[in-house]
Amino acid sequence: MIRVSILGSGNVATHLINAFLKADGVELAQVYSRNIEDIEQLKNDVQITNTTQNLIPVDVTIIAISDDAITKFSNNLNIEGIVVHTSGSVSMSELSDSLSKGVFYPLQTFSKDKGLDFSEIPICLEAENESSLKLLKTLASTISNSVFEINSDQRKKIHLAAVFVNNFTNHLYQIGNSICEEHKVPFEILHPIIKETAKKIQEISPKEAQTGPAKRKDFKTIEKHLEQLSTKEKEIYTVLTDSISKTYQ
Amino acid sequence: MIRVSILGSGNVATHLINAFLKADGVELAQVYSRNIEDIEQLKNDVQITNTTQNLIPVDVTIIAISDDAITKFSNNLNIEGIVVHTSGSVSMSELSDSLSKGVFYPLQTFSKDKGLDFSEIPICLEAENESSLKLLKTLASTISNSVFEINSDQRKKIHLAAVFVNNFTNHLYQIGNSICEEHKVPFEILHPIIKETAKKIQEISPKEAQTGPAKRKDFKTIEKHLEQLSTKEKEIYTVLTDSISKTYQ
Repeated sequence: MIRVSILGSGNVATHLINAFLKADGVELAQVYSRNIEDIEQLKNDVQITNTTQNLIPVDVTIIAISDDAITKFSNNLNIEGIVVHTSGSVSMSELSDSLSKGVFYPLQTFSKDKGLDFSEIPICLEAENESSLKLLKTLASTISNSVFEINSDQRKKIHLAAVFVNNFTNHLYQIGNSICEEHKVPFEILHPIIKETAKKIQEISPKEAQTGPAKRKDFKTIEKHLEQLSTKEKEIYTVLTDSISKTYQ
Repeated sequence: MIRVSILGSGNVATHLINAFLKADGVELAQVYSRNIEDIEQLKNDVQITNTTQNLIPVDVTIIAISDDAITKFSNNLNIEGIVVHTSGSVSMSELSDSLSKGVFYPLQTFSKDKGLDFSEIPICLEAENESSLKLLKTLASTISNSVFEINSDQRKKIHLAAVFVNNFTNHLYQIGNSICEEHKVPFEILHPIIKETAKKIQEISPKEAQTGPAKRKDFKTIEKHLEQLSTKEKEIYTVLTDSISKTYQ
């Protein structure tokens, strides 16, 4: 039985708490939040605290707080066992040197209110030595079928790639939505093509999957599209069209 | 029983042929392609021809050829019944005036080799009069549960929106893929977040679903990301980040 504490009460913390409460082979020993009200609802399931001095000894302590706060927060911790953070963009070395460091980065987009099946979420692990890594692998496997060993450099690149495929993609959805709204077309009409576009690249590479006027250098259609766009949208259209054209030169 | 002919042998034509061959209440009477070899394999299921003079009378003739060729091709047709094209970006009026015109635009990304469940694909219809529209609705309903009446103006906007949510999104996937490849990370690690990003906006609006450094104006992370990108990627990152920032001002 691996004993775990989670420090934090945001999206990632909440999803991890829920996953570990249900997992076999793990005991969620304690949850910390500086605002005790944020975790009050957990008090029947797990020990809660708002004081780091009250942290009890566990095998793995998971710091799931905002990226900027990780280093300073970890400097004030004085605990045994492995201490990991859950950030995609923070190096393992940014944790306090007094700790046995590691990283436990679940690669997914989390909304607090939306349930998630953790079993398919890739968990990217890093540790200072083999035995820590082994323990983290065992722990990650209790909630996910998709566990990877990823070093700090690679993790930063994954985080960057995720900005493109998640944050930026979502913004393109929003532009699609606003074009629909402006012309009284239900956005739902685009849902199937959005779903299919995401599904396709799980089977063929994005390079093979590319279609559209930019790829086939259909300048007549591109011209017609540009005429219909606002300044901001035009800029995005142009940059992405240029980039696609260059890719298929 | 509605009698239908399909003129063309590309992606859209192929998927429509397969869908109508399986549909109830429709008889696929004939398929035309200027290269007979492209439709040779259909000859046991349906009459095939490579000569427009040999077209037999049907209720609905579907022109599924490339956008640029539609007008000229339709000018050489001399047929009864409704004649529709399947293009998102061509107006109904671009069909020859000698014909009873309409549009039958299935809004999806088609790959010839990939099977598709037509029942969820939105079909956007337009016609010159109510009785034609009614017939097209009946026809579309034999293969899809998602049938919309959409005028030429709206259809152009939908096609434009689809470029953003499909073509451009796929290009972002490709950038994610190349970042992964460059750093020896399997692209599969991004599949779940790609799927979830697409799924999320079927439940909450893209505006609510937005996350990431651009939205929270986390300039430190943005700076770190820019340092890691190639010139082309940097340009895309900057334009999209600016656009997201402005959206959440």
